[in-house]
Amino acid sequence: MIGVLSNAGVMEGITNSAEEQQPSTPLSNSWSNKQESSKNEKPKPVGGFVLVHAGAGYHSESKAKEYKHVCKRACQRAVDRLKAGALAVEAVTAALVELEDSPFTNAGMGSNLNLSGGIECDASIMDGKSLHYGAVGAISGIKNPVLVANRLLSEAQRGKLSAGRIPPCFLVGRGAHDWAVSHGIPPCPSEKMATKFSLSAYKRNKRKMELAEKLDTGHNQTKKRRQSCENENGSGCLDTVGAVVVDLEGNVAAAVSSGGLAMKHPGRVGQAAHYGCGCWAENTCNMNPYSTAVSTSGCGEHLIRTMLARECSTAMQSEDAHQALLEAMQNKFISSPFLASEDRVLGGVIVLRCCRCVEAPPSQNIQVEFLWSHTTESMCVGYMSAQDSKAKTHISRLPPGTVPGQCLAIEGGVCRLSVVELDTPLP
Amino acid sequence: MIGVLSNAGVMEGITNSAEEQQPSTPLSNSWSNKQESSKNEKPKPVGGFVLVHAGAGYHSESKAKEYKHVCKRACQRAVDRLKAGALAVEAVTAALVELEDSPFTNAGMGSNLNLSGGIECDASIMDGKSLHYGAVGAISGIKNPVLVANRLLSEAQRGKLSAGRIPPCFLVGRGAHDWAVSHGIPPCPSEKMATKFSLSAYKRNKRKMELAEKLDTGHNQTKKRRQSCENENGSGCLDTVGAVVVDLEGNVAAAVSSGGLAMKHPGRVGQAAHYGCGCWAENTCNMNPYSTAVSTSGCGEHLIRTMLARECSTAMQSEDAHQALLEAMQNKFISSPFLASEDRVLGGVIVLRCCRCVEAPPSQNIQVEFLWSHTTESMCVGYMSAQDSKAKTHISRLPPGTVPGQCLAIEGGVCRLSVVELDTPLP
Repeated sequence: MIGVLSNAGVMEGITNSAEEQQPSTPLSNSWSNKQESSKNEKPKPVGGFVLVHAGAGYHSESKAKEYKHVCKRACQRAVDRLKAGALAVEAVTAALVELEDSPFTNAGMGSNLNLSGGIECDASIMDGKSLHYGAVGAISGIKNPVLVANRLLSEAQRGKLSAGRIPPCFLVGRGAHDWAVSHGIPPCPSEKMATKFSLSAYKRNKRKMELAEKLDTGHNQTKKRRQSCENENGSGCLDTVGAVVVDLEGNVAAAVSSGGLAMKHPGRVGQAAHYGCGCWAENTCNMNPYSTAVSTSGCGEHLIRTMLARECSTAMQSEDAHQALLEAMQNKFISSPFLASEDRVLGGVIVLRCCRCVEAPPSQNIQVEFLWSHTTESMCVGYMSAQDSKAKTHISRLPPGTVPGQCLAIEGGVCRLSVVELDTPLP
Repeated sequence: MIGVLSNAGVMEGITNSAEEQQPSTPLSNSWSNKQESSKNEKPKPVGGFVLVHAGAGYHSESKAKEYKHVCKRACQRAVDRLKAGALAVEAVTAALVELEDSPFTNAGMGSNLNLSGGIECDASIMDGKSLHYGAVGAISGIKNPVLVANRLLSEAQRGKLSAGRIPPCFLVGRGAHDWAVSHGIPPCPSEKMATKFSLSAYKRNKRKMELAEKLDTGHNQTKKRRQSCENENGSGCLDTVGAVVVDLEGNVAAAVSSGGLAMKHPGRVGQAAHYGCGCWAENTCNMNPYSTAVSTSGCGEHLIRTMLARECSTAMQSEDAHQALLEAMQNKFISSPFLASEDRVLGGVIVLRCCRCVEAPPSQNIQVEFLWSHTTESMCVGYMSAQDSKAKTHISRLPPGTVPGQCLAIEGGVCRLSVVELDTPLP
């Protein structure tokens, strides 16, 4: 069952558009026939929940359909894996592959081009069960960077390399590419990863830069920088992608992937490859009553310096998830002392947390609260539980007249996980 | 005045060798003549304190002298800058350049060679005043990676680039090298950065690896990995370098630089380039009574996954600095749930924290507490205040019979900063 979280505790100056969200209808009825038909077979306890984002930035109405479609497909991919008995980390990877493969998102295929016209991607993944983490930065010529991050994670879980060497958790550049290929991940020519859209955006940006630099001739550097800063807020193309998943064992995982800022310097690594900044996942333990998973999007440098993924995860241990996220976005991001000199702080997060309800039957005892929040003009999200027949998608927008980077939107829902019984039990 | 911190609160199973440390003698007498001679000139209020490390790892008795020498020189370089009126971030950079230039340390010149026989360095720096941060990862062909990190930091402080682009805080690989050169930092052929020692270590390691892989033929992968892990603890060559500084304005800064693990995969980035993991610096603010600065050394993957620099900085806000660091090293590092699968957790930190004492005269009102702690066999440190005539150096060792990676040593001191009056006032 999925319902809207209460909007208690909205702070002054904070926009909140949770009322726009359409809660999904409980879907247990649609499964009753199947449960009937397979009642003599021992059900395999599979299930879970996925929340994805196709970036915090600006999603035009004209492309809204495409963004929603890719979120829907990504949710379906993750749920397919969960139904096949996969754990959270495998399901989150499947969602990311779908998001990266879309030419509309700034990740994998269709990534932003850098200053030299090349494509360099960042991605990371974290497994809340083992607390292992894998990341790649500024990697070129690999269609799905998240697969490399996932492979680094799984190789690290296998223990030390020969002669006692510690396996890497973070690889960058050419070395990352070569490691990927030597581990069976196929290379992909960079030119195949550029799209008509990313190439024309590159040309447009290049002209804009040249014009800006021409106009600034004769002005002093300080003035020039200040002017540029006032003229642009850069919130156009921040559509990093990410996902958070919980499986029926209660394990959480999170992942994120990005082509980085348009016209970035070659070698620049953003939050998507930064531990604690791009994603975070931590299963419940003695210290933490909740399992939490977070994935971020937006201006990489802002997300790095505020370590937003980990901050949101820590905040999620408070009793009121909605209020805790709202305060984290306000105090640890928009008003963060780490970004005191920034006039506009651009980013977004998706968050889930879950816990076992002791009073519920064991097959339905995981409660998931999920939220998204952003300071950018819009953020596209999708979510689905394994009980659902299809994903819900939504483009959350700041209300008209509010200033991106200075106020935020926050929305979310809650659902109870159920065991999904399959027509054909898995071997 | 520098004195030994009390060793209160030593936990069971924790070694503590603070009694080995020789507190420096108060040096105010040696300055009294100078104060006399310049008493008619308005003193320029300069001063500060620096603590450096030449790595947590294993420092043989035969090379102890060299390690101490380089620490001494690094302290002197930082103090020279402080006396010339530089702020903490400039002084910490000067210390790091000296540490990188030593062929004995695993940073800059003499860095460990990677699997392909190349040199790729990581470095980062953080300014506690602006909370800005700059880092480079897997950079080749630059003699002093910390200069690139420092330049990234200062460029980011200048605000946005043309057309509203956000300046990068983290660059890697070829892109980092090219950015450095285009910003006036001279390239250095990689072969000039290798030393006789690093080349012979590479050959030795290569043979060791080949032998290990040969011996393992026919064994299954799990067994092979476990054996390697039991035979080696890799604590030999972790001698990353770093420094923490406080200036007389009370600003703190921290930096770290590393050639990375010997025989690492090309493209591997360790803690030295990771935000929150390699170094941390945060001036006092409403929330934090103390300014804190931290620099780490050791096994990069362990330091990344535990985010040790930031954890130690947070711990340093507790009342008892010694006890807080001891608990952080025990609970957030050795026994961290993030490293539950590791049998030996190898690393070390240097930490300083300072606050203004309201009862002291304004020229002497900054009290600095400084500490180092390590789980590796040894750690080489040096420290000096601007009032001192020369640096103190020390190789801290785990007591014989204790197991590296499972227990720790912790030592430290305390000093009060004084205004240093110069013979020749600066312009």
